[in-house]
Amino acid sequence: MTTELNSPLDMHLHLRDGDMLRTVAPLSSESFAGALIMPNLVPPIDTKEALLAYRDRILDATKGDIFKPYMTLFFRENYDYDFLAGFGDSLTALKLYPAGITTNSEGGVSGFDIDTLRPALEAMSELGLPLCIHGETNGFVMDREKEFVSIYENLASNFPKLKIIMEHITTKESIDALDRYENLYATITLHHLLITLDDVVGGMLRPHLFCKPIAKRPIDREALQKVALNAHPKVMFGSDSAPHPKEAKESCGCAAGVFTAPIALAALAELFDKHHKLENLQKFVSDNAKSIYGITPPEKKVILEKTPMNVPSSCGSVVPMFAGETLSWSIKEII
Amino acid sequence: MTTELNSPLDMHLHLRDGDMLRTVAPLSSESFAGALIMPNLVPPIDTKEALLAYRDRILDATKGDIFKPYMTLFFRENYDYDFLAGFGDSLTALKLYPAGITTNSEGGVSGFDIDTLRPALEAMSELGLPLCIHGETNGFVMDREKEFVSIYENLASNFPKLKIIMEHITTKESIDALDRYENLYATITLHHLLITLDDVVGGMLRPHLFCKPIAKRPIDREALQKVALNAHPKVMFGSDSAPHPKEAKESCGCAAGVFTAPIALAALAELFDKHHKLENLQKFVSDNAKSIYGITPPEKKVILEKTPMNVPSSCGSVVPMFAGETLSWSIKEII
Repeated sequence: MTTELNSPLDMHLHLRDGDMLRTVAPLSSESFAGALIMPNLVPPIDTKEALLAYRDRILDATKGDIFKPYMTLFFRENYDYDFLAGFGDSLTALKLYPAGITTNSEGGVSGFDIDTLRPALEAMSELGLPLCIHGETNGFVMDREKEFVSIYENLASNFPKLKIIMEHITTKESIDALDRYENLYATITLHHLLITLDDVVGGMLRPHLFCKPIAKRPIDREALQKVALNAHPKVMFGSDSAPHPKEAKESCGCAAGVFTAPIALAALAELFDKHHKLENLQKFVSDNAKSIYGITPPEKKVILEKTPMNVPSSCGSVVPMFAGETLSWSIKEII
Repeated sequence: MTTELNSPLDMHLHLRDGDMLRTVAPLSSESFAGALIMPNLVPPIDTKEALLAYRDRILDATKGDIFKPYMTLFFRENYDYDFLAGFGDSLTALKLYPAGITTNSEGGVSGFDIDTLRPALEAMSELGLPLCIHGETNGFVMDREKEFVSIYENLASNFPKLKIIMEHITTKESIDALDRYENLYATITLHHLLITLDDVVGGMLRPHLFCKPIAKRPIDREALQKVALNAHPKVMFGSDSAPHPKEAKESCGCAAGVFTAPIALAALAELFDKHHKLENLQKFVSDNAKSIYGITPPEKKVILEKTPMNVPSSCGSVVPMFAGETLSWSIKEII
């Protein structure tokens, strides 16, 4: 059994920089036609010069592959129309981090005052630049995303022409919000489609499944699977694949993030096949993103087949999800 | 400022065996007058011979200290009156583990059929032997204890003469059950009085705070603090101090358990002092247990004072809670 994907896209990807960039970027560019690149480097990508230079480093790390990095800018409240217009086609979206909420998010937004945000968000609305948001409050870990829904709603209703992407959603509440506001969209990761908090702390502690937002309840995973497997037109795949060196994941005080880039398409095929929804995978990993972002990724055909794939125990210094395990699907050919 | 404790007791303690026993037992026997010793060795303590031999190894490891190990037997459904009566004074309580629920709990109880349990539990009722239970189902990690409350209630109402100790409770629901059944009691750990799930997975991942039952929500911690700080007569201190070698805690797939024995009394004094409840500490760490279990521990006076204590980074191969940090209270003198 095989299935064919046209120009698969990963609409939420961390590539880091330097050696780590050179290790992980090819593991995405090999199978994906493009990806939305997160800007939370140290320091964050917040100027045109930094963005173009980062894009060039990514292109350099992925040369030989058909792969388009869609660049994002680290959102700051003081951006104005002229500044944002100056990016032209080089900028695809902006990424908003509540201050201190995840890896390298210091310097993000700490209040969500509509009047303060208005100039930047109206400029983005006019320029057709989507706002991607890591939607978590600083509350109790299981409630952070749920509590953020009212902020999403406030932004969505105050800026009806702004496309707002709820990034890596993990709860039923976020999914319910999707249908209440025309301008709310969402990315969903592979790992949040597969695991719950039980997999992280229910048996032995599994640091490689520790991520932000933390995996939630079975009822949440069910809600995520429902919209992803049925390719709800407002959701798209975003891996949030986030590499950390093995030592940083397995030490005391481990960093948050699951590294899924190299196994994402095979694992998605396995999941969609298991639920007899393979016919919806094309929309979830490409078509929905194309219409939400209005992008035309490069042509790339990925043929997946139901043949076992042995996942390596590590990719350089990074341990991928399913390390050492076997997936029932694998990539047969990339054209 | 000082406070004096008479014969402090730890009514839920893991001492393991062999080298680990020799490392950790003195860290309890130094400051506690006695402790209820958990029987989940490999194989579990389920015969009189094993129990007496284990008690002797504990006495050997703690010699020089005034310390009484109160021994428990690993509960099995097929125990009868004669078997249990044969232990005489050497047995203080039985410990019931749902099968597979925590470290070394294989071979525990897998159904909770009242008729199957009746002979053993009626024998225990007649002999005045309390039943200590690790009350968790195999459900979702945040719901396991909550789901077990109906099993506690079923046992409590079917065996009204049996003293049932809900071990290391972590939820508001368990506390609410305390007042509904005369024969339900509970132990509460130090760490569950201090942390929530936020401390385990809310920031960086902290394997040394990973335990079973997992720490719950702020509202649960508040309910636990309320009964502990007010020395509710049906709750008593049980540390559930559980040593694992540093490598096992910090590796991939870390074991569950927090090691608190060496810092328990100082940290409790700090907590009770902070809430202006120092006058209730004696009841929580000794008097309540004496009346619930009907025991008379050896005389031992522990004088604590509000003087900083630097917690060591490790005790042998084991990392204690607050390793490398400073507590505001310390043990001044033991008489």
